[in-house]
Amino acid sequence: MSSHPVAPAWSTTQWFNSSPLSLEVLAGRPVALFAFQMLCPGCVTHCLPQAKRLAALFAGTDLAVVGLHTVFEHHDAMTPVALKAFLHEYRIGFPVGVDEPGRPGPIPVTMERYGMRGTPTAILIDRAGRLREQAFGAVDDLLLGAAVARLIDERVSPG
Amino acid sequence: MSSHPVAPAWSTTQWFNSSPLSLEVLAGRPVALFAFQMLCPGCVTHCLPQAKRLAALFAGTDLAVVGLHTVFEHHDAMTPVALKAFLHEYRIGFPVGVDEPGRPGPIPVTMERYGMRGTPTAILIDRAGRLREQAFGAVDDLLLGAAVARLIDERVSPG
Amino acid sequence: MSSHPVAPAWSTTQWFNSSPLSLEVLAGRPVALFAFQMLCPGCVTHCLPQAKRLAALFAGTDLAVVGLHTVFEHHDAMTPVALKAFLHEYRIGFPVGVDEPGRPGPIPVTMERYGMRGTPTAILIDRAGRLREQAFGAVDDLLLGAAVARLIDERVSPG
Amino acid sequence: MSSHPVAPAWSTTQWFNSSPLSLEVLAGRPVALFAFQMLCPGCVTHCLPQAKRLAALFAGTDLAVVGLHTVFEHHDAMTPVALKAFLHEYRIGFPVGVDEPGRPGPIPVTMERYGMRGTPTAILIDRAGRLREQAFGAVDDLLLGAAVARLIDERVSPG
Repeated sequence: MSSHPVAPAWSTTQWFNSSPLSLEVLAGRPVALFAFQMLCPGCVTHCLPQAKRLAALFAGTDLAVVGLHTVFEHHDAMTPVALKAFLHEYRIGFPVGVDEPGRPGPIPVTMERYGMRGTPTAILIDRAGRLREQAFGAVDDLLLGAAVARLIDERVSPG
Repeated sequence: MSSHPVAPAWSTTQWFNSSPLSLEVLAGRPVALFAFQMLCPGCVTHCLPQAKRLAALFAGTDLAVVGLHTVFEHHDAMTPVALKAFLHEYRIGFPVGVDEPGRPGPIPVTMERYGMRGTPTAILIDRAGRLREQAFGAVDDLLLGAAVARLIDERVSPG
Repeated sequence: MSSHPVAPAWSTTQWFNSSPLSLEVLAGRPVALFAFQMLCPGCVTHCLPQAKRLAALFAGTDLAVVGLHTVFEHHDAMTPVALKAFLHEYRIGFPVGVDEPGRPGPIPVTMERYGMRGTPTAILIDRAGRLREQAFGAVDDLLLGAAVARLIDERVSPG
Repeated sequence: MSSHPVAPAWSTTQWFNSSPLSLEVLAGRPVALFAFQMLCPGCVTHCLPQAKRLAALFAGTDLAVVGLHTVFEHHDAMTPVALKAFLHEYRIGFPVGVDEPGRPGPIPVTMERYGMRGTPTAILIDRAGRLREQAFGAVDDLLLGAAVARLIDERVSPG
């Protein structure tokens, strides 16, 4: 597994449903990170409902299910204020961070660091903080469940 | 049919996908009006896709399919700027008006006039400008298709 | 409307959920006829649920919703005995007739008379017994509701 | 893991899409066994499509996805001849066995041995032939994917 790169740090400006999270805060836990935009239809119909079910079904484990609002278009529409209303209306209760706006371009900082191609993007990070999976678009539940189970079952090997 | 009330006038501040519409502008045509909020899950998953299909399938008739953005909560999130982005992302091409904000309460003017109970609300107005149907929540496609066909087939009877 | 042909007679060997039906028995009523095969996936996932909803939603009218089991393949699998179990398991309560087996070919008699191209096929017959619509494959609910409403609203014009 | 019972042997009369399978033939491989009836709506709409996706998505592993036709009602409708047509129409390509009819009761032999409560029932058997999971009704894809991944990753421990 040594071939997996260390996951880039997250740079966020605000959090909902949680105190601020980071890879340091979550160190030792497997992480399922869902990058989305609140006005992205594929995010709303597939990715976020999937993340909700994942959080509910694996609530008994130490898996961290985290949303990241990576706004790269329509910045004046998808503000933190709008995101807050969105999370309320769609009953999203897992932690959601707001990716730091990019300067001067439209791509936010964390999105840029991970080289994401768009939204939704699903990312899996293991207990050792390594980036294990990154997928743009819809991910099948069977494969996501399998990948998550493997991350949960892994123990951190001593350096 | 004389028992049907005249449909209240619309009061709007802005239109997308169209020059300003009103019942006067649409006089003589049957109208299917869909009141929605862009962050209302039932609107996004059911009502707006239904309105899109209705507009496409009845494009060869003089039926007017119209959206009305009746924001009664989260006003700072569901602004016209945000609505514009939403309509773009969800590929909504039929005319959408922005209901005039209420003063001092949260209920917008047209929503108040029609006594709508929430969103989504589907409203059918006949060629003579009478309010024929008003339904809060999901409407079955079979019944909507039936009701619309009847409105289309009606001729305006001379006063 | 004089250009619509008279609907061919049905030739059936057995009925479920009803005494034997025919166009004569149903004369004066609009008829929605759904030709299907119990092992046809498109029939099971789309056509039959649609027919069930149509029967339920228009129960207050004199519309006749009728199924016709037009077996043209796998004859030894889709027997009347199997159909009976199928109708029970899928909770289909509207009348279903069994199309008369063809001789010597595989196409049953009524299917042949209507020139159906496969299953599912939806057929609409008006109060005067004329064949008004015939569609192979999935039919949109909005269009079906519209077409049915028109048939219901028509009065039989005197010869 | 020693607390898991040995999976009962399968007793079948016929196989489709495969030469005869048994736990002996599959020894050393993880097995996902889906018990179904071809006229059971929950099997047709949920369980069998799930099994098809599981077989496709895990085709690169040694997971064995197997169907078992456990007919406990409507025996004269769900015959092997009817099952063959069903598998063809629904494009089911994984191996499917026919459970041995019970005598004198309606419950087939393998269904009885596993104490299944109905259909669909999903069963997971590990590389060592132990019964690890058995669930009646719909199983969430995320949980199934997780459970299957764990079985695949297990190595058989020496006796």
